[in-house]
Amino acid sequence: MPSIPPATMQALQLSAYHGQAADLQLMTLPVPQPGPGEVLIRIAATPINPSDLMFLRGEYGIQKPLPIVPGIEGSGVVVAAGRGLLSQRLLGQRVACVAPAAGDGTWAEYMLAPATHCFPLAKNLSLAVGATLIVNPITAWALLDRARRHRHRAIIQTAAASQVGRMVVRLGRRFKLPTINVVRRAEQVEMLRLLGAEYVLNSSLPTFDADLRRAAAQLGATLAFDAVAGPMTGQLLSAMPPGSQVLIYGGLSGAACTIPADRVLFERKSVAGFWLNDWIRRRGPIEMVRLSAQIQRLVRSDLAATIQARVPLSAAAQGLALYQQQMSAGKVLFVPNNELV
Amino acid sequence: MPSIPPATMQALQLSAYHGQAADLQLMTLPVPQPGPGEVLIRIAATPINPSDLMFLRGEYGIQKPLPIVPGIEGSGVVVAAGRGLLSQRLLGQRVACVAPAAGDGTWAEYMLAPATHCFPLAKNLSLAVGATLIVNPITAWALLDRARRHRHRAIIQTAAASQVGRMVVRLGRRFKLPTINVVRRAEQVEMLRLLGAEYVLNSSLPTFDADLRRAAAQLGATLAFDAVAGPMTGQLLSAMPPGSQVLIYGGLSGAACTIPADRVLFERKSVAGFWLNDWIRRRGPIEMVRLSAQIQRLVRSDLAATIQARVPLSAAAQGLALYQQQMSAGKVLFVPNNELV
Repeated sequence: MPSIPPATMQALQLSAYHGQAADLQLMTLPVPQPGPGEVLIRIAATPINPSDLMFLRGEYGIQKPLPIVPGIEGSGVVVAAGRGLLSQRLLGQRVACVAPAAGDGTWAEYMLAPATHCFPLAKNLSLAVGATLIVNPITAWALLDRARRHRHRAIIQTAAASQVGRMVVRLGRRFKLPTINVVRRAEQVEMLRLLGAEYVLNSSLPTFDADLRRAAAQLGATLAFDAVAGPMTGQLLSAMPPGSQVLIYGGLSGAACTIPADRVLFERKSVAGFWLNDWIRRRGPIEMVRLSAQIQRLVRSDLAATIQARVPLSAAAQGLALYQQQMSAGKVLFVPNNELV
Repeated sequence: MPSIPPATMQALQLSAYHGQAADLQLMTLPVPQPGPGEVLIRIAATPINPSDLMFLRGEYGIQKPLPIVPGIEGSGVVVAAGRGLLSQRLLGQRVACVAPAAGDGTWAEYMLAPATHCFPLAKNLSLAVGATLIVNPITAWALLDRARRHRHRAIIQTAAASQVGRMVVRLGRRFKLPTINVVRRAEQVEMLRLLGAEYVLNSSLPTFDADLRRAAAQLGATLAFDAVAGPMTGQLLSAMPPGSQVLIYGGLSGAACTIPADRVLFERKSVAGFWLNDWIRRRGPIEMVRLSAQIQRLVRSDLAATIQARVPLSAAAQGLALYQQQMSAGKVLFVPNNELV
């Protein structure tokens, strides 16, 4: 059985949404007590995701009242549980978890969460793997699931060298759904080819628009997953066949999408968004448990993430800088309790 | 019975898609003979629509091989008919008509069309009214039909002082669907108020964004009809409640739409297009006949168009200039056979 949690803990606390390093401070906070249906998780590992960076700048879809502990997902052991069948059954279990919609997140030694936000980890998976079980793998899964349900013959994706991008490449191969992969640099073209991607286009080349148009027409790619936004959204929409849709799931360019009105008007094209939070909410907790099991079977192959570093909470600023320097080098994990994961 | 058509006719013929006056010339062309299922219409009146202006510049959804007679809709009398029940029944009838998808249009003394492109006019309607029966009224009808089917509680529209805009205002009142009407000038605000519009916003005022946000929230306006595009599309999307959609049906600003990625990403918002051509194609000829009868009952009230001038084909350049000077002053009709309509 797990040990009794201490009265206080170390946690990263955000005091302002200015996107400055000084806004995030290591603080000593009381360890919360689980109420009915809740559990307390001793956090083993928790990643920095692009959505966490948006959260720090106040640009994420949820702004919590300040001060707040950030961190959307993580892994750990359930060390205390409130009343309720589900929460009690989780006691002592290794879980992947997501932060509650309101309240403190995973960048702390302990986190309180509804039991429905916890997914027991299979025995053969490490807590490091469990830390990134939800955000990226479920995004990749959900995007491809949508492509298959709507019977698209092929898809295009931008930021294809990202963690999600690589998962989409591998899942696409599994599902026999061709992917046209857009990256910005020649070395990313090489990397994706090694991963088994057949169609990789470099958006920095002058022939990009024509190449994309040709590939999209040839494969019948009528859905694009766009994590870049800005002018890229319009380039995608222009290159794709009539009736196509661009699904924006990130805004890495930081710019407003520019889309040619005539393509939307005369070619039955559309732009919509994909936000994991909405997607999960539309599914119930039972479907999420089933899905987390499915994800766990693929998380060491198609849905594997690369980890570039493990850092303690006390080195938060360095960890954030490292990750932002080269996001495609892999995840940076915080290890709040300084355990080996 | 109608008289036998002559061997030749006067017609406006477009020689290039440069959007210059010299590209459009009055020519003498042979009068075509109807094949099976086709009719020959002696054109009484035919309007200049915004979509005709796009066609002249090569920016419309259909580019026909040149040289071509432009003109999307008109009215007239069927003077010859090819084999087939439907075409023979139209012989001698006054009809509203739309140009065939391939082939010459309405800006001529005579036009050949499939019988399914003709809608017999009610006795109490003039050929002038019949000339604008299709493009604007069916656009307004289809937009509001979509709003009702998808159960939007209220709608926003841009270019609300346009012909379609005014029809949307009046149809909205009939259907008890509140409309928030966006115009660019103070006198247009007055004009729409006189028409019975309750919510009219001037996009030139500095308070516009805040006004629009308040009105959209108050009325629950989750669908916008946008004929302007450009930055306006993003302004609409930003001001509207989560889950909203902007439907682009024109591009009067001539600019690419700019839309903030985070609104699409985190607020389940989307941008799609509405093109009358697609809408009509998805309905069959029988539904279109039924709809044209419905439209004809409203075309002197809710769906009435203003006509600012009637000009002969020989004054095409002046007619086009007049219309483009002030589109909201009403339609300019060509009267190819110089009849009183």
